[in-house]
Amino acid sequence: MSSSHDAAEAPRGPRGAPAGPGPAASPTFHAMWRSLAGIGRDAGSGGYRRYAWTAADADCRLWFRMQAEARRLDVETDRNGNQWAWLGDPAAGDAVVTGSHLDSVPDGGAFDGPLGVVSSFAALDELRRRGVSFKRPLAIVNFGDEEGARFGLACVGSRLTSGQLTKEKAFALRDADGISLPRAMEAAGYDPEAIGADPERLARIGAFVELHVEQGRALDLSGDAVGIASAIWPHGRWRYDFAGEANHAGTTRLVDRRDPMLTYAETVLAARREAELAGAVATFGKISVEPNGVNAIPSLVRGWLDARAADQGSLDAVIAGVEAAAREHAERAGIDLTVVRESFTPVVDFSHALRDELSRILADRTGTKVPVLGTGAGHDAGILSGAIPTAMLFVRNPTGVSHSPAEFAAEDDCVAGVHALADVLEDLACR
Amino acid sequence: MSSSHDAAEAPRGPRGAPAGPGPAASPTFHAMWRSLAGIGRDAGSGGYRRYAWTAADADCRLWFRMQAEARRLDVETDRNGNQWAWLGDPAAGDAVVTGSHLDSVPDGGAFDGPLGVVSSFAALDELRRRGVSFKRPLAIVNFGDEEGARFGLACVGSRLTSGQLTKEKAFALRDADGISLPRAMEAAGYDPEAIGADPERLARIGAFVELHVEQGRALDLSGDAVGIASAIWPHGRWRYDFAGEANHAGTTRLVDRRDPMLTYAETVLAARREAELAGAVATFGKISVEPNGVNAIPSLVRGWLDARAADQGSLDAVIAGVEAAAREHAERAGIDLTVVRESFTPVVDFSHALRDELSRILADRTGTKVPVLGTGAGHDAGILSGAIPTAMLFVRNPTGVSHSPAEFAAEDDCVAGVHALADVLEDLACR
Repeated sequence: MSSSHDAAEAPRGPRGAPAGPGPAASPTFHAMWRSLAGIGRDAGSGGYRRYAWTAADADCRLWFRMQAEARRLDVETDRNGNQWAWLGDPAAGDAVVTGSHLDSVPDGGAFDGPLGVVSSFAALDELRRRGVSFKRPLAIVNFGDEEGARFGLACVGSRLTSGQLTKEKAFALRDADGISLPRAMEAAGYDPEAIGADPERLARIGAFVELHVEQGRALDLSGDAVGIASAIWPHGRWRYDFAGEANHAGTTRLVDRRDPMLTYAETVLAARREAELAGAVATFGKISVEPNGVNAIPSLVRGWLDARAADQGSLDAVIAGVEAAAREHAERAGIDLTVVRESFTPVVDFSHALRDELSRILADRTGTKVPVLGTGAGHDAGILSGAIPTAMLFVRNPTGVSHSPAEFAAEDDCVAGVHALADVLEDLACR
Repeated sequence: MSSSHDAAEAPRGPRGAPAGPGPAASPTFHAMWRSLAGIGRDAGSGGYRRYAWTAADADCRLWFRMQAEARRLDVETDRNGNQWAWLGDPAAGDAVVTGSHLDSVPDGGAFDGPLGVVSSFAALDELRRRGVSFKRPLAIVNFGDEEGARFGLACVGSRLTSGQLTKEKAFALRDADGISLPRAMEAAGYDPEAIGADPERLARIGAFVELHVEQGRALDLSGDAVGIASAIWPHGRWRYDFAGEANHAGTTRLVDRRDPMLTYAETVLAARREAELAGAVATFGKISVEPNGVNAIPSLVRGWLDARAADQGSLDAVIAGVEAAAREHAERAGIDLTVVRESFTPVVDFSHALRDELSRILADRTGTKVPVLGTGAGHDAGILSGAIPTAMLFVRNPTGVSHSPAEFAAEDDCVAGVHALADVLEDLACR
């Protein structure tokens, strides 16, 4: 790593690579991370706040354009605000596309999204070093608003393009300040009237491969630097409203209380137990309490359950188990419980043909079998998988930490990811 | 109750009195409730929002002044913003004082505070009906900012007067919008420079009797309309900070998590268990979560414990038990726990002499023994009990509900409270 890359002020980009074996990172790889490091980073938390259609987002887009132009790629922004950098003529069709996103969750890490975009440019550099010639058009894409941090809906750019989000519904999205998506786009200099499904664009794509930092520890546990995605777990969000009775915390006898915080607490613990039983994950990470006063028994505790499992049956078991436990405790405590499913995404099974092709390519190149693994996180590749053949490569995350400033990937692993992506692109686009 | 007092738009003031036996309420008693009903009432919640130094507070103060002037009492506002309505010369000393407060918690009920002030004026009306002559000065008081809803500290008016709150500390109080107490006083037309201890005023008071709606169900369970306070339970607030590790809720394996919401949930349930064991009350009613995102394992869950017990030993047992359980669960889950005692008030034992005198007076007048009961709620009478002889009368609360728009007291009981207060004042001030 560059010595100017001081640990104290560095983003948590790839650094600290051991001096031993492993492919070397190129100077341009380091330079890309350095130039991206300061964009939208909060000095207090050390995390990234790159939200759609903000100044930080504009800076990310400018960075993308500069990287593309430095490589003599043709840059265009599609009707939904996704950026594309083309090598070759898009109209030729059957294009090979790679890329990811540059936006972040609140106080996100350096890798979730950017690793895929940086690695795409670095893989192109690697292919040019190899002196290959391209038989199919190649594009690097930066999808807009993948995290949904501002408007509450993830993968807005790819959902619009694939027609899974209508213009009407997109126009109804509002941020925490009440600013609508079209107003935010306009303020950023884009034309919101143009948004909508873009089947012509998708029809020109033969394969999309997204590289992403792993958001779990499967590769760390298996000891692999790179893996291939099998599927995205079915997942959803359920809102639990526990309604009790506001009362004075100092004077109301325990037996006279209808305290919804107790039922919420029982439900939080039940979610953990049910997830353990099913080999799934279930989380209460968001809560809203009324009146939320120190000396007041709450009248309402609202908690959001995020649950995901490898298959629909396991997820159903978790959801049913948590709700049954919550209802039992609510009944006993005189609490009125309402459960609302706020969103749900069924399992995404990536193209088996493309996945097998990636396995074959990487086994041929490296001589070792690359593991195939599922993930609980949503991705643009998942959104597009219904319309075009898509695949994903994961890069090892030694701590598994994600959506946090502590998110990390070792430089060696990042470089291994670049080489794997270059291998895949070479096979797909140059043969 | 007046037939114009429509249930749909009525405040939850005394109404619905049975037609059977029980002392009758006077027309002026009804008129007082009607004129107070609309002040600071939120149309949406139906609760009161009468916060210190706001427009609603000014309306309450105007109401107090009009009631006092209608009864030819001399009204003054002391250096700390408490209102006094005098019958007789304050300088004569050994005054008998009654009253309470008119401000409210957020979305509070109609009775907590106002019942004591309305009953004081009604008791004076009753004494005049009885044709008694006063041997000692009598005052009705409206203490400022009893609930502490705006600046976070309860009983500001009586604390300042008794010297338990210094001017310096009062000046440092700020509301949620960052407005300081002195700025708020100034904006309401009061001189904040004048605030501070007022021993001369207290030295003129021989006894203070505060009537208050009960904030529990002891009188309902014993079948009495009126009771006498023995003591205010020792009580306090403890802040529990559970620090874990923010992570992706969809991809982080359960075994890799340090989820502080789980430890919080265990602690909420432990608080209930410990309170049950000790015959005390313990409540987690306020929570703050970071980052509070649906798909994020929290990095921090901050919960506030309110705990109260009849004696210090029981309270100590609850506090120690909750903290021990929290630490045990935190240890197991890799959570860093910090516990901070934010406030604490030791037991307040009201003057035994005055309490016994009230018991004797009411037993003589009614022929039945009036129950003596403790309470978990703080009051201005508790604050002043260290400086002057104080006593409290409680009026039955059939549901025990308080600090809620559903707070209620039956008209018969309110009238019984007025008569009991009149009996007490007659004995103390007219003999």
